[in-house]
Amino acid sequence: MPMAEYVRVVEVGPRDGLQNEARQVPAAVKIELIERLGRAGLRTIEATSFVSPKWVPQMADAAEVLAGLQRAPGVSYPVLVPNLQGLERARQAGVTDEIAVFTAASDAFNRRNINASVDESLERLAPVVAQALAAGLRVRCYVSTALGCPYQGAVPLDEVVRVTRAVADMGCYEISLGDTVGVGTARAAREMYRACADAVGHERLAVHFHDTYGQALANVYACLEAGARVVDASVGGLGGCPYAQGASGNLATEDLVYMLHGLGCSTGIDLDALVDTAQWISGVLERPPASRLARARAR
Amino acid sequence: MPMAEYVRVVEVGPRDGLQNEARQVPAAVKIELIERLGRAGLRTIEATSFVSPKWVPQMADAAEVLAGLQRAPGVSYPVLVPNLQGLERARQAGVTDEIAVFTAASDAFNRRNINASVDESLERLAPVVAQALAAGLRVRCYVSTALGCPYQGAVPLDEVVRVTRAVADMGCYEISLGDTVGVGTARAAREMYRACADAVGHERLAVHFHDTYGQALANVYACLEAGARVVDASVGGLGGCPYAQGASGNLATEDLVYMLHGLGCSTGIDLDALVDTAQWISGVLERPPASRLARARAR
Repeated sequence: MPMAEYVRVVEVGPRDGLQNEARQVPAAVKIELIERLGRAGLRTIEATSFVSPKWVPQMADAAEVLAGLQRAPGVSYPVLVPNLQGLERARQAGVTDEIAVFTAASDAFNRRNINASVDESLERLAPVVAQALAAGLRVRCYVSTALGCPYQGAVPLDEVVRVTRAVADMGCYEISLGDTVGVGTARAAREMYRACADAVGHERLAVHFHDTYGQALANVYACLEAGARVVDASVGGLGGCPYAQGASGNLATEDLVYMLHGLGCSTGIDLDALVDTAQWISGVLERPPASRLARARAR
Repeated sequence: MPMAEYVRVVEVGPRDGLQNEARQVPAAVKIELIERLGRAGLRTIEATSFVSPKWVPQMADAAEVLAGLQRAPGVSYPVLVPNLQGLERARQAGVTDEIAVFTAASDAFNRRNINASVDESLERLAPVVAQALAAGLRVRCYVSTALGCPYQGAVPLDEVVRVTRAVADMGCYEISLGDTVGVGTARAAREMYRACADAVGHERLAVHFHDTYGQALANVYACLEAGARVVDASVGGLGGCPYAQGASGNLATEDLVYMLHGLGCSTGIDLDALVDTAQWISGVLERPPASRLARARAR
């Protein structure tokens, strides 16, 4: 499988990142972050989440962020939506292009996270996806715990493939395969990716690795070799401050883009502008950026 | 090329790591570090350096460290030797098994580092290697700037291969190809490794990547796929504290071993004992370990 000439980078920092930062961030800062990322060349920027503010107070300003956002042409701003109420709130806030939904390939994780088995989770997801599609929205789906579960340990590859196929069949245009706990290594990542690509095709997949054990970039590389074309990452490693408790260890977008450009893949991203953005938002959060690249440039 | 079933990890923390740490470390701590690494299963542990104490005061206690060391059976303890005087000091200190020498593939780097061109550096190296071999010592050689030079930028692949072949011809049993500035990415790393393996054989090579730009593990993985069997790393990422000025960004041994075991490669290393060692030495240095693994385990 030749490596993709163009790799699309999906920026998840404003949502997945800021949601996991200890510091509450004003809507105006979120808006500036999203706009800077657009100017740096990102073409898919997950902007916010319509999860209940009771559960995720960091995202309570979702409507305000969207209302204030100066949208750039050609950029998609998916928002995370957990259920029908979330979809309704997103639509009231003016979301007209794209949402993201989520489930896990692990029963134990789904039970802890949304109090449902994998099958129940898929049943709940179906009407959300159907209503979104009926409203003309594109739907992206995260499948988490694709390489392991913090509660049940191993997750059978067959289950990952089954869930991936199920959400593809619902009509999700892209399924992002996530190693939520960051435990996977390159060979397992590539095998998992290949099995899912065999089931739904490369053009329906993205990969989403966490750097908790330092493996994210090696895992991305292994998947690129297997034909992956879309990779999720978080500017400045937002959400993954190495010294924070409960850090999710998001892969830093700038470390990813540095590798992609080195591999000869085009991304459309201006790496200098991206590093500037990482340094700026890390300054706002009053912590060093969690990316190697931003730290190296700062020296 | 099938991936190696057994990968030998060469531990460089006590020398390459501690030499680049701001804090001066007592000989007793160095000795304990080396002994802990041996108990964790490392079979090649670079112990110290006989570079002039005028230039590298951190290693002025080289003889004391060697004298105090309780050697484990089956473990090799190479010491770095820059020239004939260093070799003489090493032999006086009782080194009877192995030394390590170094050069760079870049003229500009050699001129800044040892005031010699690449060819002059090789001329100076030849009698050191010859005398060491005559004394029954094995010789390992570092070839640095194999993927780029901080002073001249690009380093021609032909030069890397030429230098590698030259030191192999001198009789070095292993040549460690180093991306000194950490600028290389996976494809370039693999191509460089392959070209050198074509010249001298896989059994004569090791790879030595720095994590300055976060690429080390992806680069290692790419080289393993190309047949690499020996990888250098530094426990706790010693020498590469992410917030230190001038950090070399050494790849952390425990992050490497985690990946190797995940890939199904055996190493003979007890990962838990290794992480314990990383946390212990980081505590002595009063800084967080620079490895993702040790930080994740600490949470």
